[in-house]
Amino acid sequence: MGKIICVGLGPGDPELMSLRAARHLSVARHIAYFCKRGARGQARTIVDGMIPTGAVEYPMDYPVTTEIPLGDPRYNALLQTFYDDWTERLAAITKTDDVVVLCEGDPFFYGSFMHLHARLQARVEIEIVPGITGMSGCWTQTGMPITWGDDVLTVLMATLPEEELRRRIADTDALVVMKIGRNLDKLKRALEAEGKLEQTWLIERGTMAGQKIGPLSEATDVPYFSIAVIHGQGRRP
Amino acid sequence: MGKIICVGLGPGDPELMSLRAARHLSVARHIAYFCKRGARGQARTIVDGMIPTGAVEYPMDYPVTTEIPLGDPRYNALLQTFYDDWTERLAAITKTDDVVVLCEGDPFFYGSFMHLHARLQARVEIEIVPGITGMSGCWTQTGMPITWGDDVLTVLMATLPEEELRRRIADTDALVVMKIGRNLDKLKRALEAEGKLEQTWLIERGTMAGQKIGPLSEATDVPYFSIAVIHGQGRRP
Ligand SMILES: C[S@@+](CC[C@H](N)C(=O)[O-])C[C@H]1O[C@@H](n2cnc3c(N)ncnc32)[C@H](O)[C@@H]1O
Ligand SMILES: C[S@@+](CC[C@H](N)C(=O)[O-])C[C@H]1O[C@@H](n2cnc3c(N)ncnc32)[C@H](O)[C@@H]1O
Repeated sequence: MGKIICVGLGPGDPELMSLRAARHLSVARHIAYFCKRGARGQARTIVDGMIPTGAVEYPMDYPVTTEIPLGDPRYNALLQTFYDDWTERLAAITKTDDVVVLCEGDPFFYGSFMHLHARLQARVEIEIVPGITGMSGCWTQTGMPITWGDDVLTVLMATLPEEELRRRIADTDALVVMKIGRNLDKLKRALEAEGKLEQTWLIERGTMAGQKIGPLSEATDVPYFSIAVIHGQGRRP
Repeated sequence: MGKIICVGLGPGDPELMSLRAARHLSVARHIAYFCKRGARGQARTIVDGMIPTGAVEYPMDYPVTTEIPLGDPRYNALLQTFYDDWTERLAAITKTDDVVVLCEGDPFFYGSFMHLHARLQARVEIEIVPGITGMSGCWTQTGMPITWGDDVLTVLMATLPEEELRRRIADTDALVVMKIGRNLDKLKRALEAEGKLEQTWLIERGTMAGQKIGPLSEATDVPYFSIAVIHGQGRRP
């Protein structure tokens, strides 16, 4: 019996993957990863040039991206079928072999693998290799510590309602906001309303090719891989 | 001119360091790390057996640990002198050579290196290598994702006042609590008061030798490397 090994690959720079992720990859015979239809996906991009000869690749391309809105019941139905199908396909491979599943960042931190994990865990042995999160990669690139002393850190998805964003932005020392995309204007309004827009950094494609760092206030349009950050100012001797 | 390279080493398991951290270490000639007087320190323990022959080690042993309480002005004065001294010593080495500073976890995430960083950054070139945080290592070991969908994640230090712990524990989906130590009873009371003690996990020495995982409610005494975790329950197709 084989197992599923889900390896966190870190924020984007291939040299930021762990020694363990690199080891599993170097002997992998079956390699699966999420991607959008027609694109290679970030996880697969990170390991470019590291796939062993003869390994079989399984691009798990999402059935939906932006065509159907999040609230639509069809969205959930499509995704469920997608995850159910891949659960069967990966479980079938583990009858004889290991499968390495590639994940950007840390798999258990807002990762897509969790939906397969929930379905597979009663059936197959699963090993998870943690990774450097996208946010660690991003705040490191700003050249300033994110948290000191007793600072409170809040991690928010920009998909939350504007009122909730405001309330939580007002009530934290350090802040990380992910999944910005089409929520950029809402996020800017919430930060502005709490007097914090001017201290917010935006990191686009942190540690990847095409990285960009600057004030969030100047952004008008952001790529999928974008994180906003406010640094804590805690106790410092 | 040399530079300071601060390498995040991850949560404890040496194989969880990044390829870049391992590369810097493999050619290091001067290696500095924080530790308590008389102990080797966690960062140094992680790289055991990986120090190149002939490299010079600089254990930066803290002048205070638990003898002087945190609020005492002597505590701050002692620490300031300590950081100032090491700033001069490391800066002196960079006149001719690179210095690799070892940090557990991710250096910019509640790390001690930040106090040297603040002092050195105007004088010396500094490179920071992010690492897998202790919390990523810990939640991965619980075998359950920490955050899903739109979950809010709050990271708290158990050193905060009980009232503030309660308020923030009540108002988050996923929770990470660090620096538990002598604040264990306070933390348990705060979680209990909000009806969340029973769902809180405690991870001691996550990914290190002697790792222990169990319900926080059963803990009576915890080692320095301990993290409490409540998993988010967000949207899941
Ligand atoms: C589905 S979550 C995956 C998070 C990932 N598992 C991690 O540990 O970082 C996708 C979000 O992560 C953020 N992200 C991840 N890596 C990033 C990077 N290198 N630069 C900017 N944003 C990143 C973006 O906000 C994006 O919307
Ligand atoms: C000064 S902070 C350093 C955090 C570190 N820079 C990081 O990225 O995780 C020390 C605290 O980190 C937590 N910690 C770090 N690594 C840990 C591990 N492997 N297991 C349990 N707790 C850990 C503990 O709560 C400890 O009190």
